[in-house]
Amino acid sequence: MDMNTTVRLARRPVGSPVPEDWAIAEEPMPVVGEGQFLVRTTYISLDPAMRGWLDDRPSYLPPVGLGEVMRAGTVGEVVQSRHPKFPIGTIVQSTGGVQSFALSDGRGVTRVDPALGAPSTYLGVLGITGLTAYFGLLEHGRPRPGDTVVVSGAAGAVGTIVGQLARINGCRTIGIAGGPEKCRMVVDELGFDAAIDYRDPAMRKELRAAAPDGIDVYFDNVGGEVLNAALASLAMHARVVICGAISQYNADAVVPGPSNYLSLLVRRATMSGFLVFDYEREYATARRRLAGWVAQGRITAPETIVEGQVSDFHDVFMRLFSGDNVGKLLLSIQG
Amino acid sequence: MDMNTTVRLARRPVGSPVPEDWAIAEEPMPVVGEGQFLVRTTYISLDPAMRGWLDDRPSYLPPVGLGEVMRAGTVGEVVQSRHPKFPIGTIVQSTGGVQSFALSDGRGVTRVDPALGAPSTYLGVLGITGLTAYFGLLEHGRPRPGDTVVVSGAAGAVGTIVGQLARINGCRTIGIAGGPEKCRMVVDELGFDAAIDYRDPAMRKELRAAAPDGIDVYFDNVGGEVLNAALASLAMHARVVICGAISQYNADAVVPGPSNYLSLLVRRATMSGFLVFDYEREYATARRRLAGWVAQGRITAPETIVEGQVSDFHDVFMRLFSGDNVGKLLLSIQG
Repeated sequence: MDMNTTVRLARRPVGSPVPEDWAIAEEPMPVVGEGQFLVRTTYISLDPAMRGWLDDRPSYLPPVGLGEVMRAGTVGEVVQSRHPKFPIGTIVQSTGGVQSFALSDGRGVTRVDPALGAPSTYLGVLGITGLTAYFGLLEHGRPRPGDTVVVSGAAGAVGTIVGQLARINGCRTIGIAGGPEKCRMVVDELGFDAAIDYRDPAMRKELRAAAPDGIDVYFDNVGGEVLNAALASLAMHARVVICGAISQYNADAVVPGPSNYLSLLVRRATMSGFLVFDYEREYATARRRLAGWVAQGRITAPETIVEGQVSDFHDVFMRLFSGDNVGKLLLSIQG
Repeated sequence: MDMNTTVRLARRPVGSPVPEDWAIAEEPMPVVGEGQFLVRTTYISLDPAMRGWLDDRPSYLPPVGLGEVMRAGTVGEVVQSRHPKFPIGTIVQSTGGVQSFALSDGRGVTRVDPALGAPSTYLGVLGITGLTAYFGLLEHGRPRPGDTVVVSGAAGAVGTIVGQLARINGCRTIGIAGGPEKCRMVVDELGFDAAIDYRDPAMRKELRAAAPDGIDVYFDNVGGEVLNAALASLAMHARVVICGAISQYNADAVVPGPSNYLSLLVRRATMSGFLVFDYEREYATARRRLAGWVAQGRITAPETIVEGQVSDFHDVFMRLFSGDNVGKLLLSIQG
């Protein structure tokens, strides 16, 4: 008889999470009640934002509670159902969490449309990742053709899409990524106009050289010194979009803020934060557009898919912070 | 025969300016050419932004050059004229600089309309100071009736006006100022709803208590820990307006930026910088409105007027940073 493997939060990490922060268990299968269905997890999404959910402080979502199954975006297949709209065999995207089976009543569940893309893409370019890039860049960055758009974390899940959306929008696109191989990839495989290695001590100079007329849109996934360098190179009326700050999520002390923020004044610029969840009513339209660009070959959406078990969650999650994944990082659960 | 007393920049200050940074001289009177006129300085404006003009780095205006007369807003009287539009006796506002007489061809010169206000107010509530408050709050803060508006430097030249404009706009207004006397003044004399002393170690807690539903508009004149505290208390979709950062203008090392900037993301908030000069075409309208509110008693514009000589510039300028002036700080030149 099947058991449900779960990964629950055992204690709150201080700094970088360690294996002891999680409790892995084999639990009885959930029982499907009327109006419910059971989803077998096939993909688990790994996202930098998940680190923030582990801290006990007010944020845009409540923190994951101690003892709760770790929150995560998932794709899976309906294997039992007492819900007329989600029959057995339906492929769905939801926030199923880090467990092999998840019970659902259909709320917050999206049916995967195979005509739009493979199931895994519903966690990547057609999922929260791609939607984050789409609404963050287009609504907050407001790029105009000819603008210089710089994105940090350019080889990451969101960054790869942001750069390509900027190019579709007629912008000059500069990626900031870690290491020569990622820099090569974003230029040669994703069509960025230029890439800068943030590990290069001359990063700030190179950014100035690559954007001699200044940065019109800066899309930040990393925070820290990279954000500060970008602030020093803003064009007039620039838009800085704060999407994330992966460089500091595991810090165990207060991280200094961007000391160059007064550039906002000198350059009459704007720095804004956003959350993709605010655009839920527009997801379907955005997803169709993203799928269209993928189908036309105008967006390439790299994925790093690790095959494994639910219990491999911690190891795969930590890859986000070691900088060795490219594009969307997924854990594929072997059935 | 009259001489022209000038205060020229002798060397660039490191940290706080000292008297040796200036060269005071008695110079021959400028000779008025065709199309020019000579203005005798009656008021010199002292503004925190002047500190930024002393540093040799790119900004919204070129730095004051070594050996140049210190740039300053002034009010004065035309005493010689070969310009048909500025006859002798005209009272004008311009950027005459720290000197007793300034030559002009009329560019950048505003005629003082005595029907709108006293000459000194053309450097305060009807001048760049009041216009900065007006455009910064209304265009960038976008206050709505019922919003909670917090302004730092609340007892200063811009802050006093921002708070009263917010009240006129139907907002709840909280001032942050230095010391109990300034806090009392902004509440009792300027009609703020509350005031918080930034020197109070419990400042952050008091700000939360004073704005229990969060800050909708934060207008920042000071930077540093006050900005950081305000970021921690933002309401959803808050607007943070960066007007200045007096707490760090005299720093001789890099000042840490606002470590709480990720609140912009959690709160879907915007932080924007602006410069009043971008609104020049709307100055006349704004000035009429401000004068109207002053005439109706809806805006009180405190002034700290120091009577002295051009050569007193340094001592008066430094009062901006010691925190002992209230409202607009002016040096009145004895004829």
